Amino acid sequence: MLRVLQRSSRMVAPAARNFSSEAGNNKLVITEVDDKTGYATVTLNRPPVNSLSLELLRAISQTLDDLQNNKSRGMILTSSSNTVFSAGLDIMEMYKPNQERLRDFWSTLQDVWFKLYGSPFPTAAAINGHAPAGGCLLSLCCEYRVMCPNYTIGLNETQLGIVAPTWFQASLRNTISRRESELALTLGKMYTTDEALKVGMIDEIAENKEKALEQAVAFLNRFRKISPMARAMTKQALRSKDIVELEDNRSQDIDLFVYAVNQPAVQKGLEVYLESLKKKAQK
Amino acid sequence: MLRVLQRSSRMVAPAARNFSSEAGNNKLVITEVDDKTGYATVTLNRPPVNSLSLELLRAISQTLDDLQNNKSRGMILTSSSNTVFSAGLDIMEMYKPNQERLRDFWSTLQDVWFKLYGSPFPTAAAINGHAPAGGCLLSLCCEYRVMCPNYTIGLNETQLGIVAPTWFQASLRNTISRRESELALTLGKMYTTDEALKVGMIDEIAENKEKALEQAVAFLNRFRKISPMARAMTKQALRSKDIVELEDNRSQDIDLFVYAVNQPAVQKGLEVYLESLKKKAQK
Amino acid sequence: MLRVLQRSSRMVAPAARNFSSEAGNNKLVITEVDDKTGYATVTLNRPPVNSLSLELLRAISQTLDDLQNNKSRGMILTSSSNTVFSAGLDIMEMYKPNQERLRDFWSTLQDVWFKLYGSPFPTAAAINGHAPAGGCLLSLCCEYRVMCPNYTIGLNETQLGIVAPTWFQASLRNTISRRESELALTLGKMYTTDEALKVGMIDEIAENKEKALEQAVAFLNRFRKISPMARAMTKQALRSKDIVELEDNRSQDIDLFVYAVNQPAVQKGLEVYLESLKKKAQK
Repeated sequence: MLRVLQRSSRMVAPAARNFSSEAGNNKLVITEVDDKTGYATVTLNRPPVNSLSLELLRAISQTLDDLQNNKSRGMILTSSSNTVFSAGLDIMEMYKPNQERLRDFWSTLQDVWFKLYGSPFPTAAAINGHAPAGGCLLSLCCEYRVMCPNYTIGLNETQLGIVAPTWFQASLRNTISRRESELALTLGKMYTTDEALKVGMIDEIAENKEKALEQAVAFLNRFRKISPMARAMTKQALRSKDIVELEDNRSQDIDLFVYAVNQPAVQKGLEVYLESLKKKAQK
Repeated sequence: MLRVLQRSSRMVAPAARNFSSEAGNNKLVITEVDDKTGYATVTLNRPPVNSLSLELLRAISQTLDDLQNNKSRGMILTSSSNTVFSAGLDIMEMYKPNQERLRDFWSTLQDVWFKLYGSPFPTAAAINGHAPAGGCLLSLCCEYRVMCPNYTIGLNETQLGIVAPTWFQASLRNTISRRESELALTLGKMYTTDEALKVGMIDEIAENKEKALEQAVAFLNRFRKISPMARAMTKQALRSKDIVELEDNRSQDIDLFVYAVNQPAVQKGLEVYLESLKKKAQK
Repeated sequence: MLRVLQRSSRMVAPAARNFSSEAGNNKLVITEVDDKTGYATVTLNRPPVNSLSLELLRAISQTLDDLQNNKSRGMILTSSSNTVFSAGLDIMEMYKPNQERLRDFWSTLQDVWFKLYGSPFPTAAAINGHAPAGGCLLSLCCEYRVMCPNYTIGLNETQLGIVAPTWFQASLRNTISRRESELALTLGKMYTTDEALKVGMIDEIAENKEKALEQAVAFLNRFRKISPMARAMTKQALRSKDIVELEDNRSQDIDLFVYAVNQPAVQKGLEVYLESLKKKAQK
């Protein structure tokens, strides 16, 4: 019933083909399309915690291109891990970074956001593990969120001493109330599954991953009789202000990120954090 | 206790007089003003389903001018039908249209929106029947909505393969949460009376039309001790961004509508739809 | 445990020193800093009802400067009155006003709003009494509101025949839903403590002032492990659109206020109101 998404050469631009073959080799992202429904299940697959490296972001970006070019009927985003949806940005991309790669990294994250937040096809996240920071962002870009119990989700950037960019903030504001967004973002609050449901950060709770995928399919099914074109234009009109705002500020946004990451205090913070991870690992 | 609104010649511009006399002859809109309260009950009266033709829109537009010129203390919008508040835009205005009339049609709908969404006097809708698409829009322009049980309401444009214009979307966003607006608009969801109350698309449920009118009056009564001028300026300040956005894009908005309607696919869709209506009628 | 905030000469500009000494002499604002937590409790102290005169506004403005210059860890705003948090703008500033002072008055209110709404340090209001109009505004500028039972709060400007400026409106919209904001502002509704909790205008109810202060401290404590810089930048990013909007319109906003206050009808209204207060006092 499931087949790996076949990409016709027609729809892959030369530059994109490199990304996609790289993604294919590493299987950083596994895309399976259900023949009956036409829905693609996109599984983040960078063990152990799907931290978003440049390569993973490129693979996601390429996958989103493929789905759009294939006129996908819908997408479900999930994780191959049993405990983590995505741990967010890969800290190794920011610690003692190569400057060119650092710019590429952020620009690719922007690409992923544009393509996912503004996708013409309907999107749902089956959140089968923790989703802090960038992991939360990916789920917020989707149009619907089903989450398994006893995990946590949130834009916890302030807890890490950093600031969620305005487009992260916009994605949250599109989902929960302004009031709750301010508390969530200033506190860097990680919500339990139950708390997330209560404030509307997720739409449903699912017992386990299997159920989560089923419930995500049920959401996508609600669009079966809706004109895909009318649906896409409506979604994009609603999200366009957020999208235009980043489009108008892409390069400044990259500059700001690069500047912030290169601050000695930030580098020191990352070092301390990585040391603490090493010690944990040694225990 | 009720009298038909008397219009002094002072307040009717020459162009407007034509519209109003036309409206008067056809009684597309019945306006009754309560002598005690000064509130106008405006009843849409284009059987069978109050579909919004150019003539009905002109009559509504003229009525709104009259109320404003008369410094109305408040308006209640309702329907003479027992089952339909308004079925929305009249499809016959869009099927094989006269191009000039088509532009006039859309421009008049814009007029109605400006005058109703931005009215200085308080407004309430007594929704005594189904209110899809344009019917829903009219009620969303009001400041309060009372609805009778077992009907449905919503901006269901995507279900018809079309896209609700940004000012339709803005009217919904002014009423319910951003999150619910996105679901409502992409799904083209028709809400039952109970569902509409739950998400805040309506404010109260009323047993029947009589009660609905009473509850609407009770809402208007809450402004009796409020300075009309301060009230109007406050309302208009809150709604001004939406209003300015359409003012700045009126002609492009008309162009877009005319372009969309003239697409062969849209004309074909209307034809199929009209055929299906005919067959239904023959049964 | 509490000490009056010591201001080093370093952080007080010459112009500011005058204001602050004035504030110090009159004790219009009492600032106490908890040595352990570093939180400042700022008590409005202009009996009987903390109406916002130019001098009180200057004292608040100076206090906010001091807290920012001292890199305050947090602020709690409360009142020395047992029944009124703040009665709002002092009507005597607007009745038969000196024109220069009138401009200064409004400009200083703008200053207070900029400094409180955009403060880098976390803020909470312990609302231990009624908070109409300008009193409500001050609490809305804070990030959290704890309120004692059986009081009322709201932007009730339309009930006084005036219009809440757009930045008052923005502060409310940042706190409660758009829908509720429109009802609150057009009706000029005063919410009871319970009603305010229900719509989200306040966050918690506290038995009495002591408990309110404790609960406000508990809110501030939630930020103890959060980077103050990241927190401040996040808050300011979220509130920046509102802030920039007033920054871009400061002088027009002053002109509008001065124009409105000088209208004969407004002056007459103030006179009638003041007469009624006098009669009440004589009873």
